[in-house]
Amino acid sequence: MKLYMTENSGNALKVRILLSLLDVPYEKTLVDFPNKEHKKGPFLKLNPRGQVPVLEAEGKVFWDSASNLVYVARKYGGEKWLPTDPLGMAEVMQWLAMAQNEIYYGLQWARGVKRGIKTGNLEEYQQYGRQGLAVLEDHLKDHEWLAVGRPTIADIACYPYVATAPQGDISLDGYPRVVAWLRRCEALPGWIKRG
Amino acid sequence: MKLYMTENSGNALKVRILLSLLDVPYEKTLVDFPNKEHKKGPFLKLNPRGQVPVLEAEGKVFWDSASNLVYVARKYGGEKWLPTDPLGMAEVMQWLAMAQNEIYYGLQWARGVKRGIKTGNLEEYQQYGRQGLAVLEDHLKDHEWLAVGRPTIADIACYPYVATAPQGDISLDGYPRVVAWLRRCEALPGWIKRG
Repeated sequence: MKLYMTENSGNALKVRILLSLLDVPYEKTLVDFPNKEHKKGPFLKLNPRGQVPVLEAEGKVFWDSASNLVYVARKYGGEKWLPTDPLGMAEVMQWLAMAQNEIYYGLQWARGVKRGIKTGNLEEYQQYGRQGLAVLEDHLKDHEWLAVGRPTIADIACYPYVATAPQGDISLDGYPRVVAWLRRCEALPGWIKRG
Repeated sequence: MKLYMTENSGNALKVRILLSLLDVPYEKTLVDFPNKEHKKGPFLKLNPRGQVPVLEAEGKVFWDSASNLVYVARKYGGEKWLPTDPLGMAEVMQWLAMAQNEIYYGLQWARGVKRGIKTGNLEEYQQYGRQGLAVLEDHLKDHEWLAVGRPTIADIACYPYVATAPQGDISLDGYPRVVAWLRRCEALPGWIKRG
């Protein structure tokens, strides 16, 4: 199994965390982001969307962190990281959706603007991101983990861009339960902390 | 089972399409969008993200179309609309991801700006949306359906905001295979066309 990634990609980090938690061996292939290798021919054949991560497994190629998480969880994690019963899977999926909406297009886009790698309306992204943080904070009032009462790919999917929210000038000071949840994630054996 | 929705919501349409294809009875609860019912107390208790659709089933509440699609597919569709083997599920999931990225934050946000219900950079959204359409067009060169060789929730998730792309001033004229795929979707018994 081969993971196309960059060391800095939060989306690739999600897949690396799950592979590490499950202790699954894989080959890292670093994509040369500064030279825009991810926007050039050979890589675009793997992923026409021009993004990392991409996972090559069993002769197939899967792009997108959500797809990669699902593959690894189903292949190596049994029911533990992604249950397949309707209620359990739906509960996990709603947090994967949060990761791909408020967290990515809010927190991460705000960070992109602050780091000068993206244009757009910083305040709009910050506000959208804070809406996501408020939902997380409220949920964590009476939950230790995001879904089904245990760590799942829901937590993994939401972690990276919540952890880096302050780089988008979004302080986590007002979200103490979110911060405590980040620390609980990081305390799981095998978790990879944001560099 | 109860679906909180508006008649115009493309995200709610996804869930309605799957329920209709599977001929599953459910109760429609219309949310008063013009009066911002979805941003007020009682509805926010169901979905703190303030969006439709929301599905109430088996005493649980699930927000987000992806989560709702997964619930209905797993509960009523067996393996047909969402396979649970690692390769099949990952293949479906990568198109759900496309629906939540280029298609929503590109095509749908462009449409939102054109309809005056959203601010932001129209050209940026249009460009992002066209990237998604190009990926779809290329994939459909040698595939009839988006994943696993048959209609799945991948097609359902991508359909609504591709169908309405022209309302964001994004013509589908340059994407004949995408248009043919929309028509194939609409020809499935029970499909609900965009109003």
